[in-house]
Amino acid sequence: MRKYSPVNFKNVRIDGDFWRERLDTVLTRTIPSQHRQLEKNGILESLTIPQPPPPLRIAPNSHNFTTQIFWDSDVGKWIEAASYALGHRRDAGIEAKVDTIVEDLAKAQLPDGYLNCWYIGREPEQRWTNLRDNHELYCAGHMLEGAVAYFHATGKRRFLDVMLRYVDHIMATFGPGAGQKKGYCGHQEIEIALIKLYDVTRDRRHLDFAAYLINERGHRPPHYFDVEAAARGEDPRSFWAKTYEYNQSHKPVRQQDKVVGHAVRAMYMYAAMADLAAEFGDADLKRACEILWHDVTSRQMYVTAGLGPSKFNEGFTEYYDLPNETAYAETCATVALIFWAQRMLNIELDGRYADVLEQALYNGALSGLSRDGEHYFYENPLASDGRHKRWAWHTCPCCTMNVSRLVASVGGYFYSTSNDVLAVHLYGGNSARVSLGGRNVEIKETSRYPWSGKIAIRIDPEEATEFAMRLRIPGWSRTASATVNGVAVELGGSVLNGYLEIRRRWQQGDTILLDLPMPVERIYANPRVRMDVGRVALKRGPLVYCAEQADNMLPVTSLRVPRGAAISIAERDDLFGGIVTLAVDGCAIDVKWGDNLYRSAAPSTQPTRWVALPYFLWNNREPGEMAVWIPEV
Amino acid sequence: MRKYSPVNFKNVRIDGDFWRERLDTVLTRTIPSQHRQLEKNGILESLTIPQPPPPLRIAPNSHNFTTQIFWDSDVGKWIEAASYALGHRRDAGIEAKVDTIVEDLAKAQLPDGYLNCWYIGREPEQRWTNLRDNHELYCAGHMLEGAVAYFHATGKRRFLDVMLRYVDHIMATFGPGAGQKKGYCGHQEIEIALIKLYDVTRDRRHLDFAAYLINERGHRPPHYFDVEAAARGEDPRSFWAKTYEYNQSHKPVRQQDKVVGHAVRAMYMYAAMADLAAEFGDADLKRACEILWHDVTSRQMYVTAGLGPSKFNEGFTEYYDLPNETAYAETCATVALIFWAQRMLNIELDGRYADVLEQALYNGALSGLSRDGEHYFYENPLASDGRHKRWAWHTCPCCTMNVSRLVASVGGYFYSTSNDVLAVHLYGGNSARVSLGGRNVEIKETSRYPWSGKIAIRIDPEEATEFAMRLRIPGWSRTASATVNGVAVELGGSVLNGYLEIRRRWQQGDTILLDLPMPVERIYANPRVRMDVGRVALKRGPLVYCAEQADNMLPVTSLRVPRGAAISIAERDDLFGGIVTLAVDGCAIDVKWGDNLYRSAAPSTQPTRWVALPYFLWNNREPGEMAVWIPEV
Repeated sequence: MRKYSPVNFKNVRIDGDFWRERLDTVLTRTIPSQHRQLEKNGILESLTIPQPPPPLRIAPNSHNFTTQIFWDSDVGKWIEAASYALGHRRDAGIEAKVDTIVEDLAKAQLPDGYLNCWYIGREPEQRWTNLRDNHELYCAGHMLEGAVAYFHATGKRRFLDVMLRYVDHIMATFGPGAGQKKGYCGHQEIEIALIKLYDVTRDRRHLDFAAYLINERGHRPPHYFDVEAAARGEDPRSFWAKTYEYNQSHKPVRQQDKVVGHAVRAMYMYAAMADLAAEFGDADLKRACEILWHDVTSRQMYVTAGLGPSKFNEGFTEYYDLPNETAYAETCATVALIFWAQRMLNIELDGRYADVLEQALYNGALSGLSRDGEHYFYENPLASDGRHKRWAWHTCPCCTMNVSRLVASVGGYFYSTSNDVLAVHLYGGNSARVSLGGRNVEIKETSRYPWSGKIAIRIDPEEATEFAMRLRIPGWSRTASATVNGVAVELGGSVLNGYLEIRRRWQQGDTILLDLPMPVERIYANPRVRMDVGRVALKRGPLVYCAEQADNMLPVTSLRVPRGAAISIAERDDLFGGIVTLAVDGCAIDVKWGDNLYRSAAPSTQPTRWVALPYFLWNNREPGEMAVWIPEV
Repeated sequence: MRKYSPVNFKNVRIDGDFWRERLDTVLTRTIPSQHRQLEKNGILESLTIPQPPPPLRIAPNSHNFTTQIFWDSDVGKWIEAASYALGHRRDAGIEAKVDTIVEDLAKAQLPDGYLNCWYIGREPEQRWTNLRDNHELYCAGHMLEGAVAYFHATGKRRFLDVMLRYVDHIMATFGPGAGQKKGYCGHQEIEIALIKLYDVTRDRRHLDFAAYLINERGHRPPHYFDVEAAARGEDPRSFWAKTYEYNQSHKPVRQQDKVVGHAVRAMYMYAAMADLAAEFGDADLKRACEILWHDVTSRQMYVTAGLGPSKFNEGFTEYYDLPNETAYAETCATVALIFWAQRMLNIELDGRYADVLEQALYNGALSGLSRDGEHYFYENPLASDGRHKRWAWHTCPCCTMNVSRLVASVGGYFYSTSNDVLAVHLYGGNSARVSLGGRNVEIKETSRYPWSGKIAIRIDPEEATEFAMRLRIPGWSRTASATVNGVAVELGGSVLNGYLEIRRRWQQGDTILLDLPMPVERIYANPRVRMDVGRVALKRGPLVYCAEQADNMLPVTSLRVPRGAAISIAERDDLFGGIVTLAVDGCAIDVKWGDNLYRSAAPSTQPTRWVALPYFLWNNREPGEMAVWIPEV
């Protein structure tokens, strides 16, 4: 059992400007436009299987599968995002769109329950022959998440029932029994979905099957993907990625102690492992999660919480290999890190998880969505020569719906509860309704977070109730202070694992004032990160800043931060609906360098005041240079 | 016609310690050991074609050719190196080895003159069907260079005659005529060889054919490699490298203005272009060479004259993309840059060519050979975490013989002559015999170059003769001075394009003293080279230095150069037979960073005196960290 349960986003109304604006954009622009894109790009059409099925319309690429093989997952993910939108407000138009898709899926489903539109329409006899590459269970997982979310939002069972038939088929096909395949997916995902399904059905088989997939993974000999490749008549060594580290099946999960391979696959798997560790009280699995968490956050994570430097494997390479310009740092990976972090918080209330959750949310995840809500980053580099641009859609649109489902349910990451504890992980104006010790409690936070660290939280239990508030004191905060009804709270001994506990008998109207001063900080990277040696990143509160060309006359690559330079904040109501920028009393090197690559004179510098912008907002104006890590001189 | 002709290495006896030691090692250890390796690795065996030929012993790799397909070239290159050794001293043992190989080749040669042992032994019916990938003309080129060198060294015509028959066959097969293939090699090389052949034969067809191959390259439609691929039943777009930039056939050579693709292919081609520009007085071709020279040296060259940052294409990527740890910087590419530079000097006496020639020779090329003469670098990175090591041999041993043929003939890069001009490009103790205005002149240089810039040159014409000495004043030298027979020479107006001209009637015993002071210099990279921002390289004279772990207690990655720190030189007779190291009154950061990737405190520093070693000598002791570019603090 989980120790802490997140408060569902439906019980957290976002009031604060920051998230209200993002949420409204996602609900009114992003999610509808994503449906249009699914339509325009033939993804919805791919769900209707003509009879007889047409020949392959898309030639396999050099990895021998079409990139469109995972279209079902995009549909499932859009339904999930749309369902979260419905959780905010029912909308007959959206429901009609979902219902149409669900009927197409029901029609496509085979008599035995199998439901993968790519295989049904194109090579049904090949189903379940290439779990390594072809995303079948991954697609099933995302559709299942969509079905669960749609059921939660509307109470309609149709999609859920379709998927339950498919899950029955899958559980009959895979497992430890005689005649069953001992398989698991090359792209982990379904494990998370099965646990979400279990939350609805409380059917123990669903939980056990998720555990089976995780526990079976990486065992050998024989390795399942070897067996499968041999059955296809292929040499298993011809696997394009060369190593099963790519999909984290190089060894059993409990023996894994280094974060490797494809970043999204890894994060989805760790999220499922955390869930299973909680559900089964599995100390080994919890320990593996902790080791992997430490590994990725202390050696392999960008300061934006971007993950995976390499385009080749969309994932991890070597410790401390964090190139800025060529950072892959896929939006999906950072979103999935948030999923994992939340699940670690379900096991143990520890600020290191919430710190990373917040770091990921405000930086590497949010950067994935444009301010207009209809353009995206797939990769989130930490520097650009001006050529990195947002796109309106992508051959592989996975990131688009990952960011929309995240933002549409962002309220679900603010709180969690346990018996008589209410933990507050994230700040920002909101009104929440939670149940503590059987009593309803209303929480009203007023704040301008993340622009300001001044936070007021009013607590209104239906009647006076004793419980503990645990307020996260962010890792970046060094001078936090708090009062309850105007009386100072002693933080010294009361902050445990990053959370300030205030236990009392709460009365209607009790008010906590929490002050998290937000000085501008210079952040230095471990010197083993060779790309960042001699450079600083600027951070204020949870926000990482960057220098973007649109705010600066001199080339971004010429800007420098002198040691000891004053850095002031500027409230900019004229920019992006009101934000805080930084003004650096810095300098710039003379870019007139001449024609030589090398010379014996150091570049000369001139004083200049330059502007830094929150990283997540970059590339919403004209294209131009950008850098997070600025040389310190 | 070339304006300047290099003085052959046979007329330049190396006396100075620096090159004498390298040369002796190459002659007595490297070249004999390379023959042993050719034997041990089956390369010599591959020249003897059993009847009937055996089936393919080596499976094609993923690029659909075996890496061993270019073994003939390695044999040719070894013969070339061995011939240079014979140029120093005839040796019956070496000659017997060469003669054995030549007889094997003569036996393998087909009646029509065709001579590629891989194709003859394995799939003779496939010859000339894949010039793009399979190195047939490249192999012919290296064998031809070997044959020319062996003829020069011994006067024996056997190998030359075998190769002349092959060249006749090639010239019948390829060309503009009806029934001829309009082909050229995917790996340029034969063009250089044909021009060397022309120097021996003065058969105009050989020169014209070299020009044909260069001029035909890159014309379309149709592109020759497309035609050839289609004839093989392949889709030309399936070319693994994706672009004909890889082999510089993306456009006709005169239109090329950016250095792209595989670095060795590029350098060999530019070298041939320079030769042809000289031979034909072709101003367009000369102009193309100058543009490409400027392009590579001002935007794409490591400070060690390493070329090509990327392992993927063994070549160039983007301007200013010069990563240090992952630098490919193949030894062959830097050696080939020396070939090109020398040919540019044949056209025009300009110090920028000789500066790069010297920079390449003393750094990125010489680093490719270990001090023991039997270990090699294929890649020459500018930083290492300690895992980069020299190897005794390699599947593709191209670099091994490139460095041995270079060093064995290094005397050939010191001088060139033109009518009544003797140009001195390189310094170092030597005794040379040149012909100027029909008179023999003996030159005797005494110096400890590159350890010292104090150079004495004694000139002994057989009788008093007027001619001009043109002494290169290196680009790195800012305070050069000179005397003739003790009388100061005014450098101000006499230095033209990097050469100090001293014209007079030279008498026996006339002596020039040239002083090129060698202060330690801090070198800065153009700030567009993002990897080197905030860092300096240390250089003294032509030598680039590096910090290597073997000389330093503190981790190399922790070392820093404070602005204004004193850097002194230390004569170290105990190291590598006597070298000059640098001692930096620098500092080191505290590497006890803790477990966080990021923190708000800058690393603390402590003073330390650390040692820098000439780059070319690194990795000759125990493995360890190394860095050329050191952060300046």
